[in-house]
Amino acid sequence: MMIDFQKAVELLRNAEDVLVYTHANPDGDTLGSGYALVRALQKMGKNAMLLNSDTIPSKYAYLEEYVEYDDIEADFIVSVDVAEKKLLGDRIVKRYGGDVDLCIDHHSSHKLYAKNSYIEPDSASTCEIVYLLIKALGVEIDKGIADCIYTGCSTDTGCFRYSNVTARTHRIVAELIEAGADHSGINVRMFETKSLNQIQLERMCLEKLECYDEGRLAVITVTKDMMELCGADKSALDTIKPLTRQIQGVSIGVTVKYERPGVVGVSVRTDENYDASAICAHFGGGGHVRAAGCEFKGLCENEVKDTVVEYITQKVL
Amino acid sequence: MMIDFQKAVELLRNAEDVLVYTHANPDGDTLGSGYALVRALQKMGKNAMLLNSDTIPSKYAYLEEYVEYDDIEADFIVSVDVAEKKLLGDRIVKRYGGDVDLCIDHHSSHKLYAKNSYIEPDSASTCEIVYLLIKALGVEIDKGIADCIYTGCSTDTGCFRYSNVTARTHRIVAELIEAGADHSGINVRMFETKSLNQIQLERMCLEKLECYDEGRLAVITVTKDMMELCGADKSALDTIKPLTRQIQGVSIGVTVKYERPGVVGVSVRTDENYDASAICAHFGGGGHVRAAGCEFKGLCENEVKDTVVEYITQKVL
Repeated sequence: MMIDFQKAVELLRNAEDVLVYTHANPDGDTLGSGYALVRALQKMGKNAMLLNSDTIPSKYAYLEEYVEYDDIEADFIVSVDVAEKKLLGDRIVKRYGGDVDLCIDHHSSHKLYAKNSYIEPDSASTCEIVYLLIKALGVEIDKGIADCIYTGCSTDTGCFRYSNVTARTHRIVAELIEAGADHSGINVRMFETKSLNQIQLERMCLEKLECYDEGRLAVITVTKDMMELCGADKSALDTIKPLTRQIQGVSIGVTVKYERPGVVGVSVRTDENYDASAICAHFGGGGHVRAAGCEFKGLCENEVKDTVVEYITQKVL
Repeated sequence: MMIDFQKAVELLRNAEDVLVYTHANPDGDTLGSGYALVRALQKMGKNAMLLNSDTIPSKYAYLEEYVEYDDIEADFIVSVDVAEKKLLGDRIVKRYGGDVDLCIDHHSSHKLYAKNSYIEPDSASTCEIVYLLIKALGVEIDKGIADCIYTGCSTDTGCFRYSNVTARTHRIVAELIEAGADHSGINVRMFETKSLNQIQLERMCLEKLECYDEGRLAVITVTKDMMELCGADKSALDTIKPLTRQIQGVSIGVTVKYERPGVVGVSVRTDENYDASAICAHFGGGGHVRAAGCEFKGLCENEVKDTVVEYITQKVL
């Protein structure tokens, strides 16, 4: 059932022992939302804890320090930033059943799965919504909550670059800074820290950059050898994927990368004239209109590149 | 003479024919401030025009479209974002004398040179100050003014990443978005568009990256040959300068680059433990605490690099 803001506040106010789920492969928005909510509920005297299916990447470890809890017997389950049930991940779905009493989310692709859903598709992040809920619950926004909420506001907007940012986003962030959020420290952690391995990998990728169709298609291929040579892990690819689309004149940017044994991943970024999710759907993948992905099994990186380049130059451009 | 906000408003209100100077090598903050102010003064029925010593980089061309003017006989000269007289550039200083009636600036290294100076060293950008002045003058913030001001707010903060950002910055930006600023379009232009030449130059710079003192100092040297080989112009360096400081463990990042015949520029970025402006002051330059610059004459790029590296490793680290 879709509910309104007041009903969501009421449900949270009446809950006593609350379990908060994040999505699998957790990012800054789901973790920021989750930890902020747990901390706020604890400040109200409730028991609350966070549960997620995957390991939390070390770059988000500072968020964990804002909460402390023992295992609880939950009477109310909330999910934050989780667009569909399967995105809760195997651990939660298989071991805990994946039932949710209240879902708070901002994805326009949201598939209703919870008993109660409060969805704001125009919100730049779920953290924005959680912030307003916490304020409505009468909880003081301390530095801990401010840091958690800031993390989601910043990471889900590419540090306030993307078109999903609204005036509300900036007004909320102003309040977070006044509440003590370590905004520049968080941004350094999230956006400005690269390992030497990552820089080495970027350099090799730029060397291998290929352009097609008068520069409208740009392709970077990251082989297993390159990853090993640089000692880079998968997170090093985060800064590689946007590279192709940043080149002047490029409408479609493709990154082909070694994923795991036998599997090669493709990530596609497009400008407003092309649909990345349609391109990836052709190969059994999916995603957003401007950023999508798909996987190939049993082909090497260069074979995958040739297949994707042929399809895009022949059928798309 | 240092003046207060009200006095600055009064001076602008009483002026009739206003010439606005930006600094040489104009950036988003000086141009955004200048064009916003010219447009606002014109909306008040005054004559106003902008004058600067150098060519305006093409990425800022959209700002020029918000103003139109014939040459004027100025009775009042304003400088925006210009920390000292010589930064007005040769054309203004030599041909026009460089006298300024009112200077509006935010540099902590500001050297008083104008008849009247309104300086806010805690403001993230000069655009913030100009915005508040325009509002105090009673001028409606239209899309043109909003785009100009947003450009400076965003570029001088690395798109709201740096520690100079305050709650006021975000509140002003919220108002700019409501006034119609094309925030995401401007950010794509400023931060997400690179020419192939620029990418080529980045790759060469990463190849030449050198680290000292257990990786606490990182240096990139950009020679004239590299610039020519890549066909890159000076604006290509905008994305190079922050690279060094983004490397894990680096406290001081230095970019040494060919500036013009006989002149080599140095740009220094530091973390919270070091003062970039003090390092550059040692070589006759200046700037902000975390980002500053200086110039050398008569040395080649590698000689400058050796000089700066020696000073930093011996005296600073």
